[in-house]
Amino acid sequence: MKKSEAAPGALTRSVINFGAGPAMLPEAVLRRAQEELLDWHGSGISVIEMSHRSREFLGIVERSVADLRALLSIPDTHRILFMPGGATSQFANVPLNLSAADGHADYLCTGHWSTKAAVEARRHCTVHVACDAGGDTATGIPVPGTWTLTPDADYVFYTANETIGGVEFPFVPDTGSVPLVCDMTSSFLSRPLDVSRYGLIFAGAQKNFGPSGICVVVVREDLIGRARAHIPSLCDYRVYADSDSLINTPSTFSWYLAGLMFEWIRGQGGVEEMARRAIERSGRLYGAIDEGGWYRNPVAPAVR
Amino acid sequence: MKKSEAAPGALTRSVINFGAGPAMLPEAVLRRAQEELLDWHGSGISVIEMSHRSREFLGIVERSVADLRALLSIPDTHRILFMPGGATSQFANVPLNLSAADGHADYLCTGHWSTKAAVEARRHCTVHVACDAGGDTATGIPVPGTWTLTPDADYVFYTANETIGGVEFPFVPDTGSVPLVCDMTSSFLSRPLDVSRYGLIFAGAQKNFGPSGICVVVVREDLIGRARAHIPSLCDYRVYADSDSLINTPSTFSWYLAGLMFEWIRGQGGVEEMARRAIERSGRLYGAIDEGGWYRNPVAPAVR
Repeated sequence: MKKSEAAPGALTRSVINFGAGPAMLPEAVLRRAQEELLDWHGSGISVIEMSHRSREFLGIVERSVADLRALLSIPDTHRILFMPGGATSQFANVPLNLSAADGHADYLCTGHWSTKAAVEARRHCTVHVACDAGGDTATGIPVPGTWTLTPDADYVFYTANETIGGVEFPFVPDTGSVPLVCDMTSSFLSRPLDVSRYGLIFAGAQKNFGPSGICVVVVREDLIGRARAHIPSLCDYRVYADSDSLINTPSTFSWYLAGLMFEWIRGQGGVEEMARRAIERSGRLYGAIDEGGWYRNPVAPAVR
Repeated sequence: MKKSEAAPGALTRSVINFGAGPAMLPEAVLRRAQEELLDWHGSGISVIEMSHRSREFLGIVERSVADLRALLSIPDTHRILFMPGGATSQFANVPLNLSAADGHADYLCTGHWSTKAAVEARRHCTVHVACDAGGDTATGIPVPGTWTLTPDADYVFYTANETIGGVEFPFVPDTGSVPLVCDMTSSFLSRPLDVSRYGLIFAGAQKNFGPSGICVVVVREDLIGRARAHIPSLCDYRVYADSDSLINTPSTFSWYLAGLMFEWIRGQGGVEEMARRAIERSGRLYGAIDEGGWYRNPVAPAVR
């Protein structure tokens, strides 16, 4: 976990966490959160203590949504929802909202997380595994020509970047008119994105834009309002869309910090700049692994 | 929202939030979180960046659970779970875990929150309203002799303190052998509690022990493992009990701050001291309202 070379946002700190779960945040963002912690913008109280219905917090909400929309050029066809928990909650929410109880969904299983998503989805609909790269030990993505996608699936699910095996999609799967659903937890905001190609994208905050405990869902309008009748209300995307994600008290501090991250990324030059830095960083890291003779990386270079 | 008299934990600050939603935290706790924000105990990283599987975070988890158990003298018959979201998520989780699809539950509707809980429960089981004090406008609790409790209910649900109407139970309902379930969000840790009288207690953190985004569930062992088959995994109490609430990445910062609050309350003299201060504080507040001539409080003094 120690490394002398610093992540882009943590320029003066010498410890880096490469593990699964929460990841590093830019020092500038942490310092700002620290400075504001007891007195947010002269309000005399902490953002943690602020009512989620207050003018101040609604301002934070509005700005964060606008910044995220700008960062990824999210078109008006798609809504941005902030939901509690992490990506794992969406493993259930996706089938409960997008598939009928007697429907089926196609899953591209390319590692640990997509396989886990498929296991949860099986509790809620029929799952068709359209490709299986071998669970945790997957080291590559089967070529699309070998996938057994079904034209009448309710959706196709894939995980953009498998953090345990280390396999990352270098392309966006083509699923025709079937809605494409993507778990983007570990790569969200690390590069530009053509949101219009997706029916739904979700990402837990802890990898790229904040603390754990909040999850962003970007969903095409026409996929909202299809949830099954007897699911928990708080699993229904429409409930969040209709309330601007304020149906109940959200994780206010997590949302605030996500907002600071969006602002910081915009200030740094947006996701284009994040992509440039990520390529530089991973080039240095994989270079060290491949050339150093100490480590072995079994994942094919094209899908790292 | 401005008031010159400070809450017990916020001795030097002059702004107080009396609103629904997140509430005030002791300044000492906020200052400690502020000091540790960029470097937790010499680790070189923020608690926000720490892996939830790290030795350091597991230490925070262990200590918080032990402190909470000590604070409320929670017996070994009951488990402590930390779950994402707030109390509203439990409005669905309770029936999904404790009642059969063809079962029924009794609800004591004494205001806004209990009525809301009953509405959600109706999506998942048959709800029998055993008393109805009039929703948001409730100003008293119907006497127990008028309640229509049913002996074969899967559980009885009530809300200890209705923050919108302002009605608080001055006693623990007697439900015989039927498990008693209580939403204690707004009074949790504000006084001693005989946990053995409850089947299940839940409380969103934001009112008394931390930031929003995390919910504590205290549940009797024998009520764990009864969840219905096809609910989202993350709604099943057993999944949290079996993983020590670490089935997926929890809201790590919220949990950490809850832990600081538990430690702070212990240091102040425990829930007995919190109770003493709450009585003093509410006496001053209600006294000012009743005597001042400016405000009118329609809630009967015995159930405020």
